[in-house]
Amino acid sequence: MISIERLRKLFGLVIALTLLSVCFAFAQAPANWQSNADWKRASTNTRTGEFPKIGTDGKVAFQYRAPDAENVQLQISGGPYEMTKDEEGIWSIVIDTPAPGLNFYAFVVDGVSVSDPSSTFFFNGSWRSAVEIPSPGEDFYEIRHVPHGQVREFWFFSTVTQTFRVMYVYVPPDYENELSKRYPVLYLQHGGGENETGWIQGGRANFIMDNLIAENKAEPMILVVNSGFAFRPDEAMDPGIEFLPGSSFEHMLLEDVIPTIDRNFRTLADREHRAMAGLSMGSLQTLQVGLTHLDQFAWLGVFSRPPTPFDAESQFNGVLNDPDALNDRLELFWWGAGTVEASINDKTREILQDFDDRGIGYTFFESPGTAHDWQTWRRSLFHFAQLIF
Amino acid sequence: MISIERLRKLFGLVIALTLLSVCFAFAQAPANWQSNADWKRASTNTRTGEFPKIGTDGKVAFQYRAPDAENVQLQISGGPYEMTKDEEGIWSIVIDTPAPGLNFYAFVVDGVSVSDPSSTFFFNGSWRSAVEIPSPGEDFYEIRHVPHGQVREFWFFSTVTQTFRVMYVYVPPDYENELSKRYPVLYLQHGGGENETGWIQGGRANFIMDNLIAENKAEPMILVVNSGFAFRPDEAMDPGIEFLPGSSFEHMLLEDVIPTIDRNFRTLADREHRAMAGLSMGSLQTLQVGLTHLDQFAWLGVFSRPPTPFDAESQFNGVLNDPDALNDRLELFWWGAGTVEASINDKTREILQDFDDRGIGYTFFESPGTAHDWQTWRRSLFHFAQLIF
Repeated sequence: MISIERLRKLFGLVIALTLLSVCFAFAQAPANWQSNADWKRASTNTRTGEFPKIGTDGKVAFQYRAPDAENVQLQISGGPYEMTKDEEGIWSIVIDTPAPGLNFYAFVVDGVSVSDPSSTFFFNGSWRSAVEIPSPGEDFYEIRHVPHGQVREFWFFSTVTQTFRVMYVYVPPDYENELSKRYPVLYLQHGGGENETGWIQGGRANFIMDNLIAENKAEPMILVVNSGFAFRPDEAMDPGIEFLPGSSFEHMLLEDVIPTIDRNFRTLADREHRAMAGLSMGSLQTLQVGLTHLDQFAWLGVFSRPPTPFDAESQFNGVLNDPDALNDRLELFWWGAGTVEASINDKTREILQDFDDRGIGYTFFESPGTAHDWQTWRRSLFHFAQLIF
Repeated sequence: MISIERLRKLFGLVIALTLLSVCFAFAQAPANWQSNADWKRASTNTRTGEFPKIGTDGKVAFQYRAPDAENVQLQISGGPYEMTKDEEGIWSIVIDTPAPGLNFYAFVVDGVSVSDPSSTFFFNGSWRSAVEIPSPGEDFYEIRHVPHGQVREFWFFSTVTQTFRVMYVYVPPDYENELSKRYPVLYLQHGGGENETGWIQGGRANFIMDNLIAENKAEPMILVVNSGFAFRPDEAMDPGIEFLPGSSFEHMLLEDVIPTIDRNFRTLADREHRAMAGLSMGSLQTLQVGLTHLDQFAWLGVFSRPPTPFDAESQFNGVLNDPDALNDRLELFWWGAGTVEASINDKTREILQDFDDRGIGYTFFESPGTAHDWQTWRRSLFHFAQLIF
C-alpha cells in the first residue's frame, strides 16, 4: 500500500518534470504569448481579461490561474485538452484554430467546470464564457465605420403570460432622422439553448444589418428579438411545447408583441412588410406561426431546423397541400443549414426534396464548414436579410 | 501512517452520518422548499433556474449539484457557509436574510470558486452570479405598471480611445410621443468594479426613473451610462488614473460623448440642463470633471466617494476656495453614503464638515443599513434624480 506522503512526493516529481519539459518546449517555441505583440486579446474578453489570446496563425492561447489545482482541462469544441501549470500556478494551453465565430468554453478544475472570469458571458443554457474566433475573409458581422442603428430594450406586460417581458428592438440608422418614414419588420427568434439576448450578443444581428444597409444590400428594417419561451400562469415551464399549434408563445407573439411593436414603432403594418425567421427551436416556431398565419407574414426564414418529424400532409393546417396557393402567398420560403450539422442538413434536404416533388418554391443556403452554432446563423441572417422586403 | 483506503472508509462514514443527521433535521424543519409554494424563485434566476429561492420569512435557500464534491461552501456577504449534500449529490443551505438588494455570491467546490449556473450574471470585476433580495416596504426600483422608457444601446467611435465603444441611453416614456420636446441629461457613472452595464442591470436606473416620472417626482430626463474606463491607444490600461485631471476618460466624456448625445438625442444642451453623478470611482470622476467644467454641468451627484485624500485648497482648479462663486454656479452639490460603508461615510462627513466651515452648500443623504453596494446607489439615484432639473 502506498502512503499519502509517498504519493505526494511522487506527484511532486512528476509535476516538476512536466514543468521542466514545458519550460524547455516554450524555450523552443517561436511564439511566447506573454510578450509577443502578435498575440492579440480576443474581442470577447472583458476589459481587463488578458486571455484567451489569438495568434497571427489563428492558434489560441488560454490561461487560468489555479495554484492549488492538480488537474485543469480546457473544455471547448474539439477538446477537452489537458493544460499545463507553471511555477506561479497558472495553467496554459495553446490550441489550433477552433471553429470560426463564437466558441463556448470552460475550464475543468479538478473535475469542477468553471467559466473563464476573463470572458464576457453569453447565454447557452446558462451564462457561459465564449471566445470569438476571427474567420479569415469574413467580416460581415464586425462593427465597422458605418452608420449604426440602435438596439432598444423594450419592456412590456404580456396579457398571455401575465408577466413583464423584455424584447430587443433594432431600429436602422436612419430611423431617428427620417421621422415620417415607416419600416418593415423582421421577427427573429432564438433556439432552445439561447434567450432573448442571443441574436444581438452572439448573433451580432445589429452589426450585420448596419453593414448590409450601409452597402445598400438590404432594406432598412426593424428587427424584433423576443424570448421564445412563454407560459401562461397556470402552465408548467415545459420546453418542448413552444412550437406546437396554439402555444403560448404563438399567442404572445400574435396578441402581445406584434400589436405592441406596431403601436410603438413606425412600422409598415401589413403582411407584405412582415417577416419571421428563427434558428433551431425558433425555426419550428417560424414554420408553425408563419405557415398558419399567412395573413400576417409573407417572408419566412427557417435556420437549422432540428431533425424532428415533418409531415407536409397534416401539419400547418395543410397549407403545404396547396403549393400554388402557398407559392402565391409566400414571397420567400428560405431554408438554411450548416454542412457540419449533419442530421439537420440531411433532414432539411429531405424536406426540400419533398417540396420539389410537391412544387413548393423555396431558397436553400448551405453554410460551408459550420455546425449548429452562431456562425451558421449569422450567415443565415446575412443572406436572408438581403432577400426580404 | 493511515492508508488511503482507511481514510476513504472513515470519510464515507462521516458523510453517511452527516447525511443521516441532515435528513433528520429536514424532517423536523417546518419549511421544505422543494415543495412549499411559500418559497419563490429569486427574480435574478435564469428562466429555468429553480434556486436561489426566497421564503416568506426572508430566508434564502441555495442549491448546487456536485455529486463528486467533498466540500461545498456558499460564498456571500456574511459567509462563507458550509453546505450539506443529499443522497442525489445536491448541496443545500438556507441562510438568514442577506442585505437587501443585489447580493453577489459563488459556490466554493472543493476549493474552486464557481458561479451559480441558475443565476443571471452581473458584472463585478468579472461576470458573476447574484441574487436579488427583496427589501420590505421598498419597491421604488421594481418594474411597475407605469409607462416605460427605453434603454438604447448606442455605439460610437471615440476619437480619444480610437475604438468603438457602447453606451446605454435611457430615454423617458414620452420621448417617442413628444417629438418636439427636448430633455435634460444626466451622465451617470459606475465604480471601479462595474462596467457600462451596471447602472441598468444592477442599479435598475431605468425602472427608478420610470417610477419617479410616473409619480411626477422627477423631470422626464435622459440618462447616459458610459464605461468609466478610457485609454488612448498608447496608454496602458491602468485603473487608478481615470479620475485624475485631464484623464482620457475626461477627454472622452467631454469631446466624444456629450457632443454625440447632443447630436443624436433631443437634449437641452446647456449647463442648466446637464447633470453628472457617479458612484465610488465614478464619484471621483464626477468631482474632477464636474467641478473643473462648471460651464458644462450645474448639478453634481457624489455617491459613496472612496476615502482617498481630499484637498479643498488645491484640487479642482481651486474652485472650492471661492464658495460664493461655487454656490452661485452649482444648482445642486449632492453627496450620499451608506451607514454601513464606515470609512466612506466618515470621510464624506469630514469633507462636508470642511464645506460647512467654508460655507459651501451641499445636500447629504445617508442610506440606512446599506454598504458599498447597489442598494445604496439605487437609493442615491432615487433621491438625487428628484432634485435635479
